[in-house]
Amino acid sequence: MTDADATADDGRMAAHGGAPGAKGALTPRAEDFPRWYQEVVARAEMADNGPVRGTMVIRPWGYEIWERLQAALDERIKAAGAHNAYFPLFIPEAFMRLEAQHVAGFDPELWVVTHGGGRELEEPVVVRPTSETVVNHFFAKWVQSHRDLPLLVNQWCNVVRWELRPRLFLRTTEFLWQEGHTAHADEAGARDYALRILTDVYQDAMEQVAAVPVLVGHKTERERFAGAVRTWTCEGMMGDGKALQMGTSHELGQNFAQAFGIQYSDATGVLRHVWQTSWGASTRLVGALIMSHGDDFGLRLPPALAPVEVVVLCVREDDAVRRAASALADELRRAGRRVHLDDRTDTGFGRRTVDWELKGVPVRVEVGPRDLAQGSVTVVTRHTRTKQAVALGGVADAVERICGRAAGELRAEALAFRESRTASVGSLEEAVEAGASGFARVPWKAVREEGELQLASEALSVRCLQRDDGGLASAGEADDALVAVVGRSY
Amino acid sequence: MTDADATADDGRMAAHGGAPGAKGALTPRAEDFPRWYQEVVARAEMADNGPVRGTMVIRPWGYEIWERLQAALDERIKAAGAHNAYFPLFIPEAFMRLEAQHVAGFDPELWVVTHGGGRELEEPVVVRPTSETVVNHFFAKWVQSHRDLPLLVNQWCNVVRWELRPRLFLRTTEFLWQEGHTAHADEAGARDYALRILTDVYQDAMEQVAAVPVLVGHKTERERFAGAVRTWTCEGMMGDGKALQMGTSHELGQNFAQAFGIQYSDATGVLRHVWQTSWGASTRLVGALIMSHGDDFGLRLPPALAPVEVVVLCVREDDAVRRAASALADELRRAGRRVHLDDRTDTGFGRRTVDWELKGVPVRVEVGPRDLAQGSVTVVTRHTRTKQAVALGGVADAVERICGRAAGELRAEALAFRESRTASVGSLEEAVEAGASGFARVPWKAVREEGELQLASEALSVRCLQRDDGGLASAGEADDALVAVVGRSY
Repeated sequence: MTDADATADDGRMAAHGGAPGAKGALTPRAEDFPRWYQEVVARAEMADNGPVRGTMVIRPWGYEIWERLQAALDERIKAAGAHNAYFPLFIPEAFMRLEAQHVAGFDPELWVVTHGGGRELEEPVVVRPTSETVVNHFFAKWVQSHRDLPLLVNQWCNVVRWELRPRLFLRTTEFLWQEGHTAHADEAGARDYALRILTDVYQDAMEQVAAVPVLVGHKTERERFAGAVRTWTCEGMMGDGKALQMGTSHELGQNFAQAFGIQYSDATGVLRHVWQTSWGASTRLVGALIMSHGDDFGLRLPPALAPVEVVVLCVREDDAVRRAASALADELRRAGRRVHLDDRTDTGFGRRTVDWELKGVPVRVEVGPRDLAQGSVTVVTRHTRTKQAVALGGVADAVERICGRAAGELRAEALAFRESRTASVGSLEEAVEAGASGFARVPWKAVREEGELQLASEALSVRCLQRDDGGLASAGEADDALVAVVGRSY
Repeated sequence: MTDADATADDGRMAAHGGAPGAKGALTPRAEDFPRWYQEVVARAEMADNGPVRGTMVIRPWGYEIWERLQAALDERIKAAGAHNAYFPLFIPEAFMRLEAQHVAGFDPELWVVTHGGGRELEEPVVVRPTSETVVNHFFAKWVQSHRDLPLLVNQWCNVVRWELRPRLFLRTTEFLWQEGHTAHADEAGARDYALRILTDVYQDAMEQVAAVPVLVGHKTERERFAGAVRTWTCEGMMGDGKALQMGTSHELGQNFAQAFGIQYSDATGVLRHVWQTSWGASTRLVGALIMSHGDDFGLRLPPALAPVEVVVLCVREDDAVRRAASALADELRRAGRRVHLDDRTDTGFGRRTVDWELKGVPVRVEVGPRDLAQGSVTVVTRHTRTKQAVALGGVADAVERICGRAAGELRAEALAFRESRTASVGSLEEAVEAGASGFARVPWKAVREEGELQLASEALSVRCLQRDDGGLASAGEADDALVAVVGRSY
């Protein structure tokens, strides 16, 4: 029996409902997934509801995960040649009305400032729900010649949209995101760039960093962005079989270029409208992480996104334990790991292990007096919940092995789950049935616009269109040859 | 004669007003400093005015400088133990009214949202001008025990304030900043932390990274933050002798703790109110960089903050030139420098050198056919505008030397300027005279509240109080023994 086993009783109590009140066990995922999600967000101290309806406070544990996701996306966005910039929060209401589809899509969601400096404003201003209008107002000034193209700009910012059914991270009145805006000399340039962002930035960061496998494809006309000619999307399957739209990349055609007068003179001096893209991914990705990888004990994090990769716990108050734990923590830090030393022995060991499991820390190293006397500690892998006794000299290697494998194993598990919940079917009726608990793959010819109406009546939708092999449609390829992925969405 | 000399004519024309229109020379700083500033911001493509009055678009060149300042501050904030988080943009109007001094200070500057989702809101919400109120609403929930203290939180965000006389970066309706908020068990803990932020985060980043020397001290009662018991400040002297407040760190006492009910139980179980700090630095720092280091040819940047450290220019179209420039750029990149290869030989060489000078790139390497035939290139140091012929094999070393020295030399130059414009005087009258063109150091006893009124009538103010040796007042030290630094402020 290890020290950890000997003292795990209060931990089990807490984890399995033995302790009363808010600190009892999580609601099992299978019993009530939305409630489980809320509890994980609250008890892992990731976020709180803000005082204004639908707003969110992102607490340090949630924010640090977001910072790491941000860094992964930002690195890829810069590698794709875009430069960061910042456009104003406040947009004149008149700007929103310049592109017809855009205003129709966003008008019901706007928050409007009418007073400033103690007076009523002459013209109300909108708090940005997205920045196409104000960005393109400036693109019209900045783009003159073909030499100014492509113009590739990204911004990290907050946006606000009226939200009827808010849920932390997934659907909030205010959220943090990046929004990219680009202008190109021709349609092919815009299309290629929209796809580059889709696959090299979004899909790569989601799958390789967040370990969340995604399907890629394009939206049907019904589902596409207000103002786009084509919306490309990454769709993940969450732990309850529902779909989450995790990032979108839009081909805007010349819609905004015409509305805002963005023209360049080509090499022969002829004035032409630019072709554009816009693309965004948001704090919703933190929700995707929770719902893809979380289990009945809380969050499970890929080490690259974990604020703490390894927690070293003193099982109980003891000088030798404290010294050994501190030395191990230092050793792991020198090896480049983010380490937290938990020596709060005035709090029960079980309580603390439950909290670290909730927060999803990938590796726990438990240092207790009995094990230590035999020169070993207990190393616990969070994502498999397996324990092993490890000699003191082997801890750094054991941690490396666990951290090296964790993301791949989480991704494989999520992928296997998605495959187990995906059915290829031939008819709309079968798609309705299979889509209720996962994804149905059905020929688009069997759905079409009429089928989408019927899906909507069953709370289902076409998440994306793609080739039968999962590939993206090529330019000019008709939707009729494609497969629709049908599911229930967040 | 070097290639660069031979082809610099159009450069000189542009730099000295020979070229017509917007691309003519900058207005000399000595002639009209505010106009020079505006021109540098516009022509270095750092920022534009937004469509809503007082708002700002930060263009990629300005934003990348801000990103590097952010990183320098963020690293130091984390080293001081604070964690990043995010609080909502929208604050219920009622929250703003809970702390009496705070509301009095901010009420006239508020922007108010009255409509959302197509309807009038039941309660108007304020767009945050600063976040003390909403942060402390949550601190009251999160702080229970002395074990929860100190609570050290920071956020990077946008804030908006009604602005009567907006100027890009210096004073804008919306700006980007970080705001830190902390709670401590006792007054000394709060004071020590406020000072740690002042010196180890702000002063260190400003002087060591931005190369802008600052005076540190505390504000008079008249000048302090609405809701603080003491405001500590970093004050820089700009190139026109005026003062810029570059970052402030506030001791809030128990003002917000009482207004929001933030209490903890101490080790003996007694409930006590916390002691707090808040502190912020903003995109105004980009303005400080421009005004501290800029010259009549544009921006001068410390290499650590420059989006591009070295630009390698092809003087004219020539195969050997292009190959050599490309090889040099690769060599410098391998040495870890941020390098841009400028091979736009369809634009005049002079025009391009003028643009790179405007943008403040620390080093230019000019590659021309004649020099190249002799195995050399011209290396130009931006901050001194000195040229040297350097053998191809020695370019990397030359660039290292210039980049290694640049920040120190810029800082020394700014410090010498400040000293040349600072006078130690004994009376208020003398302070008024000296403060008109720089800083006057005058005993606070000779100023006091009545003197501040008189200073205000001359458009002057006390920028900070400090010891005669430049040190900070210690706890409980009376202002009567201190020196007031008087100047004109932005």
